Amino acid sequence: MNAEKDATLDEGGGVARLAGPLRLDSGARLDQVEIAYRTYGRLNADKSNAVLVCHALTGDQHVAGRHPVGGKPGWWTQVIGPGLPLDPQRHFIICSNVVGGCMGSTGPSSINPETGKPWGLSFPVITIPDMVRAQALLLDHLGVETLFAVVGGSMGGMQVLQWAADYPERLFSAVCIAATARHSAQNIAFHEVGRQAIMADPSWNSGDYASLGGRPEKGLAVARMAAHITYLSEAALQRKFGRELQRDGLSWGFDADFQVESYLRHQGATFVDRFDANSYLYITRAMDYFDLAASYDGVLAEAFRRARHVQFCVLSFTSDWLYPTPESRDIVRALNASGARASFVEIDSDKGHDAFLLDEPVMRSVLAGFLDAAGSARGLA
Amino acid sequence: MNAEKDATLDEGGGVARLAGPLRLDSGARLDQVEIAYRTYGRLNADKSNAVLVCHALTGDQHVAGRHPVGGKPGWWTQVIGPGLPLDPQRHFIICSNVVGGCMGSTGPSSINPETGKPWGLSFPVITIPDMVRAQALLLDHLGVETLFAVVGGSMGGMQVLQWAADYPERLFSAVCIAATARHSAQNIAFHEVGRQAIMADPSWNSGDYASLGGRPEKGLAVARMAAHITYLSEAALQRKFGRELQRDGLSWGFDADFQVESYLRHQGATFVDRFDANSYLYITRAMDYFDLAASYDGVLAEAFRRARHVQFCVLSFTSDWLYPTPESRDIVRALNASGARASFVEIDSDKGHDAFLLDEPVMRSVLAGFLDAAGSARGLA
Repeated sequence: MNAEKDATLDEGGGVARLAGPLRLDSGARLDQVEIAYRTYGRLNADKSNAVLVCHALTGDQHVAGRHPVGGKPGWWTQVIGPGLPLDPQRHFIICSNVVGGCMGSTGPSSINPETGKPWGLSFPVITIPDMVRAQALLLDHLGVETLFAVVGGSMGGMQVLQWAADYPERLFSAVCIAATARHSAQNIAFHEVGRQAIMADPSWNSGDYASLGGRPEKGLAVARMAAHITYLSEAALQRKFGRELQRDGLSWGFDADFQVESYLRHQGATFVDRFDANSYLYITRAMDYFDLAASYDGVLAEAFRRARHVQFCVLSFTSDWLYPTPESRDIVRALNASGARASFVEIDSDKGHDAFLLDEPVMRSVLAGFLDAAGSARGLA
Repeated sequence: MNAEKDATLDEGGGVARLAGPLRLDSGARLDQVEIAYRTYGRLNADKSNAVLVCHALTGDQHVAGRHPVGGKPGWWTQVIGPGLPLDPQRHFIICSNVVGGCMGSTGPSSINPETGKPWGLSFPVITIPDMVRAQALLLDHLGVETLFAVVGGSMGGMQVLQWAADYPERLFSAVCIAATARHSAQNIAFHEVGRQAIMADPSWNSGDYASLGGRPEKGLAVARMAAHITYLSEAALQRKFGRELQRDGLSWGFDADFQVESYLRHQGATFVDRFDANSYLYITRAMDYFDLAASYDGVLAEAFRRARHVQFCVLSFTSDWLYPTPESRDIVRALNASGARASFVEIDSDKGHDAFLLDEPVMRSVLAGFLDAAGSARGLA
């Protein structure tokens, strides 16, 4: 493992204390908010090359380079790097941990300044618009007025749509990948299973596991396992694992006999090392609450009414059953109805929802084409 | 609630002690096996009208009439009753709780005669062929040599296929609904999530919850919730619940805000009242181990080689994503290749896998048509 910085990425970042309180959709207010972020590349002289990348449910700000914990590659090294669609030599790329998260931004595991103890469940419920509001304050902090592009997949794509609704004047282009404008009943149902798994774990202790010195690892692992299945297509699971066994022959017991069982257990076990259970509750709640049209009398196109000047790119994957293509088509239809320009590509892939995180050459080339064209329009080199 | 018997069903049943030991695929042997069963109707003089109905994962022998516990209707009152496809006035209908179950048949919650304590995890792992072997011994006990039909949906359908492979000489016809000839990686993955949820519950106590006087209710409820999502189609969930709220407005907390959350929690909570957690482990394991072709060098048609005389009916539902139609097509292709006669109908339904348990008029009329024709061929009135 090599956790040294890659000079070609021109990495920066830190933890920003936001100026002023963060007003939340719940009516609550967070007076002190810290947002952990990374940057790659430099803001150009006319400040026209900033790109905000929004992460998904369990993602974080370490989008490129190597993660400081564990040294693993950032979660989108397929897309961000020299010669890639988002290039630190051309773009000033910013990625921040969402408010409510657990990678350095203020969230339920942060210390509540009023009590000196972790917030736990006394942390206010947050929403996708709250996350975006915090990002906008971060951009203020960084002196970035407008974004050349806001880009994200899955929950990141929800944030992209929210940006277009709430801060269209700060956007030149927007890329929404494998996302939805609202969580479906099935989406909510799977998240609720995960939350119930966490809350069923006695170590969760009504959210106050900090005082016990433990963590609801078993519950969180089960939550992750259930969610992980939804990120993969049936075909991908079958191709990758089929009914292949771990050992020669069955155990005739409840050990992991099948490779897919072992794989899922591993997904659960490694997840608990890097993620906070309460953050999982809060962020899944934010996603379930997400229904962009709801604030516009149920008319999604109205959400984009002020974003007609923004160039949109919407991508979906054929085998994504978490946010299937019709969800993206609804977004595109609403964008068209609002008068915005939208490119839409459904990418043929059997990798399921997680395809946006994987090596998908078509996605990469579509992103490169869209961002190059938008860059020319924006006057970027 | 009216738990009185319905005279038109001519109900019977009890608990049969099987003659001789039950040899299991694991190599283990159960010396004393009790099988709880229900019957509806009477065996005719030439013993040609017996029908075995095989239940699904969480089903039981109470297929018609009213359940003695709680007085709810049996799980297939849409199909079994006067004037219905399976009619106690024409058929002698038998349904037994699978070995490994928890509704009166020998299973992990039964007393191990050697220790005087519940088996718990010392109960041997069972398989679908083991379940079928126990059913065949039950038929011996009942003096039923041949079946006019063996019928089942989901795991019941797996048993139907196993019957055709292992005891074709005892079958006249076979109806396999919403099933598969082998569990896929995704099927196994969802079951593994459920098992991990149970085993993560400290009350599970390595399967020995009997000695603690408690039960892993929280873990079992989470397992049920995860599984239940797979029984419904995305469209059915959306139609039934969408994003409808429980109350006026959001809770801004982790209560059940959405009706789908409340529904799932209810599914989990009521399930633990009627089902044993260890039985859930054992029966899901049996389903995951199921791969009918595996014993025939991977050639499914070989499994049906001795069943050419059996009239098969295979049904699937368009919106079943647990065992989607291609799984049924594989079965039909294998039947055709083996030389058996097979009717196949894919029923248009948006109700998902659970459609076979619901009021599906097309399913009912297909079943009626098939069983009437087979009945005529069999010489039934």
